Amino acid sequence: MTQPSFDPKAFRAALGTFTTGVTIITAQAADGSQVGITANSFNSVSLDPPLVLWSLAKSAMSLPVFTDGTYWNVHVLSVDQEPLSGRFASRGEDKFAGIALDDGMTCAPLLPNCTARFQCRTAFTHDGGDHLIFIGEVLGFDQSDRPPLVYQSGQYALTARKPREEVRLTKAEPPPECSYTEDLLGYLLGRAHFQMVNRLQGLLQDQHLDQAQFFILSVLCIRDRLTLDEINAYIGYTGHRVDPSDMQVLMAGGHVVIEKERYRLTADGREASLHQIAQAKAVEEDLVQTLGLGDALALKLLLKRLIERTDPGLPDLWAVSA
Amino acid sequence: MTQPSFDPKAFRAALGTFTTGVTIITAQAADGSQVGITANSFNSVSLDPPLVLWSLAKSAMSLPVFTDGTYWNVHVLSVDQEPLSGRFASRGEDKFAGIALDDGMTCAPLLPNCTARFQCRTAFTHDGGDHLIFIGEVLGFDQSDRPPLVYQSGQYALTARKPREEVRLTKAEPPPECSYTEDLLGYLLGRAHFQMVNRLQGLLQDQHLDQAQFFILSVLCIRDRLTLDEINAYIGYTGHRVDPSDMQVLMAGGHVVIEKERYRLTADGREASLHQIAQAKAVEEDLVQTLGLGDALALKLLLKRLIERTDPGLPDLWAVSA
Repeated sequence: MTQPSFDPKAFRAALGTFTTGVTIITAQAADGSQVGITANSFNSVSLDPPLVLWSLAKSAMSLPVFTDGTYWNVHVLSVDQEPLSGRFASRGEDKFAGIALDDGMTCAPLLPNCTARFQCRTAFTHDGGDHLIFIGEVLGFDQSDRPPLVYQSGQYALTARKPREEVRLTKAEPPPECSYTEDLLGYLLGRAHFQMVNRLQGLLQDQHLDQAQFFILSVLCIRDRLTLDEINAYIGYTGHRVDPSDMQVLMAGGHVVIEKERYRLTADGREASLHQIAQAKAVEEDLVQTLGLGDALALKLLLKRLIERTDPGLPDLWAVSA
Repeated sequence: MTQPSFDPKAFRAALGTFTTGVTIITAQAADGSQVGITANSFNSVSLDPPLVLWSLAKSAMSLPVFTDGTYWNVHVLSVDQEPLSGRFASRGEDKFAGIALDDGMTCAPLLPNCTARFQCRTAFTHDGGDHLIFIGEVLGFDQSDRPPLVYQSGQYALTARKPREEVRLTKAEPPPECSYTEDLLGYLLGRAHFQMVNRLQGLLQDQHLDQAQFFILSVLCIRDRLTLDEINAYIGYTGHRVDPSDMQVLMAGGHVVIEKERYRLTADGREASLHQIAQAKAVEEDLVQTLGLGDALALKLLLKRLIERTDPGLPDLWAVSA
C-alpha cells in the first residue's frame, strides 16, 4: 500500500483518517470586531503548565487578529452545533449573528452550548510551514455533558463508545459447521427489536391487545380515518396481514370505530395508544441513559441509514395527504 | 457551567472530550533497539511543506531516542489494532514481539495493518510545558481502507458517519397531538428488523416456511436435539409460541425429525437453514458495503450493548451444554 509519489490530495486524504473533534476558535480584533474559525487542529500539549495548541493557515484572513492579540477561546463543539461548524468554516456573513455570547474571562467571544471550552492566552507561536502554530496557556475551562461532534475523512460523525471489555452475548463459540453467530446483523436487529417490544408486553396485556393491534393503533394515532387496505399498506412490512377480525377486536374493545369503511380511533383508543407511546418512550429514556446520549444518537442515525437502504418503498406514514 | 478552580483532573476530563484518533509513534535508538508509544496528540500542520506534529511527555523514558534521532513513523491505528494501542501505551515487555514489520524508508520501525502511516524526519522541536512538541516533515505516507480507531473521554470508540444531508425517513412533521415519531428507537428497531427479514422473504416462500419456522431451524442449526420446551426457551423472546403443529409442518417438509421427544435437523433441514443464513449474510454484506465497514461495526456494537441492557435473561444459545 506504499504511495510512491506525493500527491497533495492523497496526503490530505491520509491525514483525514486521523479522527478529530471539531472546534471553533474565537478572538476579538483591536477594533472590537469579532473573528471565529472552525479548526480541527486543536490538541492538548501540557497539563502543568496547562497548554493547548492549534494551527492556523498563514493565508487566513483572521491571522492578524490572532497574531496581534493575546486572547482566544477554544470551543469543543457538541453534536447539536454542527450548523455552527459550517457557519464558522465559511467566509462572509456575520458569523456571530443571533448568538447570545456568554461572559468570558477575556475579550475573546465565548460561545454557549459547547461540549467544552478553553479560554487561553498565547504563550508561543511557532512556524509550521503554511500554518502558524499557536500554543496557548489555559486561563479557564469548563465542560458540559453534551456529546461532542466528530470529524473523520471529511465527514462529520458521531461516536459509539466501546466498553473496556468486549461486548459478547455468548460465552461460547458457535459450532464450526454453523455460520449463524451472534455477529449476524439480522440476529442482532431481531433480538434488539423483540427485547424492546417485550418491555411493552405487560402494558399490552393489561390493555388486552397483541402486537399487531398495537401497530394498528399506532398507525391510526398518526393517520386517522384509514381503510383496511391503507392500514395494511402501512404495517404490511411487519409481516402481519390485518384482516377484519383484527379490527373487530379493536372495535369490541372500544378502541376503534368504523365510518364509511374508514377506521378511526375513539377517545379511549387514542388514550390507549398514547399510553403505549409514553411507555415506549420511558423504555427508550432508560436505554439512552445506559448507552449515553451520543451513543443513542449514533444508533438512531445508523438505523435510519439502514432503513433508508432497505426500504421496500413503504408509504410515508407522516406525510400530509393531499 | 464555569469551573472556578483549576483542578487537574477536571482539566484532563475537559481536554478528553476532544475526540482523537489513536497513533503509535516509533523510532530506532542509536543502539538499534526499537521504541514505540501510543499517542493521541498527533495532528496535521501543513500541506506544503508536508508537516505533522505530536507531543511527548518530557518524563517519557523514550524521550532521548526521539531527541537524539531524526526519524520516526506515525501509525494511525485501525479498529482491529486496539490491542496494539494498549500494548504500546504500557511499559515493560518487548512491545514489538511477534510483529512482522514492513520495510520503511528510514530506520524507524514500520508497523503493518494500519489505517494510515506517515514516515517523518524531525523538522523542529518546541518546548511545550511538561511535553516536547515534535514537528516532522513527512517523507512518505500510505493509507488503507481499514476503519480507524477513535478515542474519546478515556474510552475507545467507533464512528458513525453522518451524511451531509440529515437522514429523514419522512418529509413531514408528525401531527402535534401524536408523539409517535420516526425518532422513536422502538420504531427504528422494528422497521430495521422487519425490512431485513423481508429480504429473506422470497427464499422462505420458496422453502414453504414462515418466519417462526425460520427461527426454529436457526436454533436447531446451532443446538440440535432439543425438546419443544427448550426450543421455546430459545425463541420465546420473539413473541412466537412454538406448538407441536409448527413442528409437524417442519417434519412433513422433511426438515426435522423427532427422536425420544427431541427434535433434530435432517440433512435437508440443515441445508435449508444454511441456505437461509447464507442469504442473511449476503443481505448483511450489501449493507456493510453501503454503510461502510466502520459504521457497520458501530451499529453491531451498539445493538449488542442495547441487547445486553434489555436482556430478559435468555438462555445462551451458543453455550456448550454441560
